[in-house]
Amino acid sequence: MLAEIITIGDEILIGQIVDTNSAFIAKELNKIGVSVYQITSVQDEQKHILQALAEAKTRTQVVIVTGGLGPTKDDITKHAFCEFFHDTLVRDVKVLQHIEELFKKYITTTKISELNRDQSLVPSKAEALHNAYGTAPGIWIKEDDTVFVSLPGVPFEMKSLMRDEVIPKIVKEFERPYILHKTIVTYGLGESAIAEKIEDWEDSLPSFIKLAYLPNLGKVRLRLTAKGPDKDVLDTAVAEEMEKLHPLIGDIIYGLEDDETLEEVVAKLITAKGFTLATAESFTGGKIAQHITAIPGASAYFKGSVISYATETKINLLKVPTELIDAYSVVSEEVAMVMAENVRKLLKTDFAIATTGNAGPAKGDSDADVGTVYIGLATPKGVFALKFMMGNHRERIVQKTVNKAFELLQKEILKF
Amino acid sequence: MLAEIITIGDEILIGQIVDTNSAFIAKELNKIGVSVYQITSVQDEQKHILQALAEAKTRTQVVIVTGGLGPTKDDITKHAFCEFFHDTLVRDVKVLQHIEELFKKYITTTKISELNRDQSLVPSKAEALHNAYGTAPGIWIKEDDTVFVSLPGVPFEMKSLMRDEVIPKIVKEFERPYILHKTIVTYGLGESAIAEKIEDWEDSLPSFIKLAYLPNLGKVRLRLTAKGPDKDVLDTAVAEEMEKLHPLIGDIIYGLEDDETLEEVVAKLITAKGFTLATAESFTGGKIAQHITAIPGASAYFKGSVISYATETKINLLKVPTELIDAYSVVSEEVAMVMAENVRKLLKTDFAIATTGNAGPAKGDSDADVGTVYIGLATPKGVFALKFMMGNHRERIVQKTVNKAFELLQKEILKF
Repeated sequence: MLAEIITIGDEILIGQIVDTNSAFIAKELNKIGVSVYQITSVQDEQKHILQALAEAKTRTQVVIVTGGLGPTKDDITKHAFCEFFHDTLVRDVKVLQHIEELFKKYITTTKISELNRDQSLVPSKAEALHNAYGTAPGIWIKEDDTVFVSLPGVPFEMKSLMRDEVIPKIVKEFERPYILHKTIVTYGLGESAIAEKIEDWEDSLPSFIKLAYLPNLGKVRLRLTAKGPDKDVLDTAVAEEMEKLHPLIGDIIYGLEDDETLEEVVAKLITAKGFTLATAESFTGGKIAQHITAIPGASAYFKGSVISYATETKINLLKVPTELIDAYSVVSEEVAMVMAENVRKLLKTDFAIATTGNAGPAKGDSDADVGTVYIGLATPKGVFALKFMMGNHRERIVQKTVNKAFELLQKEILKF
Repeated sequence: MLAEIITIGDEILIGQIVDTNSAFIAKELNKIGVSVYQITSVQDEQKHILQALAEAKTRTQVVIVTGGLGPTKDDITKHAFCEFFHDTLVRDVKVLQHIEELFKKYITTTKISELNRDQSLVPSKAEALHNAYGTAPGIWIKEDDTVFVSLPGVPFEMKSLMRDEVIPKIVKEFERPYILHKTIVTYGLGESAIAEKIEDWEDSLPSFIKLAYLPNLGKVRLRLTAKGPDKDVLDTAVAEEMEKLHPLIGDIIYGLEDDETLEEVVAKLITAKGFTLATAESFTGGKIAQHITAIPGASAYFKGSVISYATETKINLLKVPTELIDAYSVVSEEVAMVMAENVRKLLKTDFAIATTGNAGPAKGDSDADVGTVYIGLATPKGVFALKFMMGNHRERIVQKTVNKAFELLQKEILKF
């Protein structure tokens, strides 16, 4: 059971936007056992769209198209569909009602126009899919054995259409195999060193299980993908293979990664244990706090943060003694510890994370080399700080530090 | 002059990662007058890669391939290249030396292995491109009139190879037209309302200028793209068309957007004027601070932030009077103003931004509806706060607020 994703829009091909829609669609399809064979981004140009549709039809049973559904002249997906299916546009009365309602309720600043009303025109062979958040309906056309779906390119409209309309319809329409992904997270060894240790194991994997290496910022993830008609067979086989892996590289296996990020794991943990958390961030500039608050429910345990980007803010707000800074510099184990302990007291929390370091490009209020990072952890049992060298790439230094901070925090919380 | 991008890797097709490489590559190519015709993401599978290479060759003169260059068995790009060009792998001594040096200098935790050394094997017809940050070299092969380039999928390795090796070589190899993009940012009118106002203008655009509408979170960007052999002709024609646009929609035109983001514009402005800045963030959880500190040089003007996620943090750290909260609730104009003014005093800055609101999904420490947002601005001239309704989508509420905060800040700074 194969699908293809076609994204339409010059903004993708000139690099003005990153296509995040495809990853979302691919993940949702995978969950129901549909593999994505190819993702193709094409121009806002009828000939090019028609060619992509024709090629996809020869290879797959589901073709999901995003983009080009707006009300303006540069949006030509519906016309391309009409050409491709030898069809014409007809008005869908229910969609028209929905558009008029949206304007009445939410879009009070602009008057409804003919262009808006014309978004209720859909190919006559199509079924219109309800777009709860926007004026452009989704379109569903089945021809021969392939389903073609057209969705708006605006991510939150696309997501709700995909989840509420498209996935349930595909589930109803097609028999699908089962796809199982398990991703093992490892720390401490490079990709090729791991490959050597598990070579025999890898070579003897059954043909329906595939292995991939995904190295990224200090960790290597190993992804096992199994595909077949019987869920139980896959579950058992994958579990068995993972058992065999432990004697080989058990010392570097950190855990499993499914859809959950490390910060989601920490969020669950800290909520379950009823602890509270604060951060004091220097060069990470609020990125740890932002990762924490991106998860709904953070207000239950996250009290807040002091972002002490300037040295004077460390002194004034976090009460880091000037003498300590003079003696050890702002980028030091000592300062990281005081930052963590003081923000913990200041915001009256159980745990606190602090960061201080130099992310470059130039040296700051310290002589520490670019890439030098200290992470401080204050817990009900005490306080400590660790030093890390995080390379010389500004964004990566910050992101690696954020990852490491959550890793350290998780370890500490698990002690309680 | 057309190019295609082919990204290789199952992780993209199962939605495990978002392909950010393509947008970067497309942007770099556009800058030197190379248009990207199509972006194709294919599986780690030889047959599929070969098919994509063959199709790209019929359409374009430059094919950039990313991914599948790692040392492990799932990385098969080099083998696919050998098959495609009827070639074999040979050792590149300079690349081998570089790999050994990298291990000596930076990769001290893992010993170099045969798998690592074998990354110096490249197709005999290829020129190896120097990868300053990694062990996998880039590959450049010209066959007939098309250049094929293979780059590692790790973004920071790919970026440095693209900038330092690939772009200069393409510039040397091909005559290219000139491509000009101008993006006009508008606020306050919907896409279709704008389209109606500028219909005649749009219809009379010369054929070498293309218009696109890019609606996003309260703003609509209008992108003009011109392409041709003569830079001066394009510059003049686009400038003329933009002149004609002003009488039609001048009241909603906010400015030009090139590569610069609003926060970069604000960063330049505040640095030039020598002002300082702080933030007090509630539901935005550090996202404004994080946008500020993502720009190198922020330490010159950004003193820090108090993230008062919990009401008690607003009281304890930002000294918001309890009576004020009792009278007006934490989500109010009054509290936003005090937060802004107090963080300005606390961190001794010229400007301060404060946010308080409810991003949902549930109501917090206030009865305010989900989507209710107050942004406070404290300046040397005084303090004020404005109310906004930002919809009902958590992430979008936060992002819209961040955008709006920078917009308000820019306006205020320009008064000085």
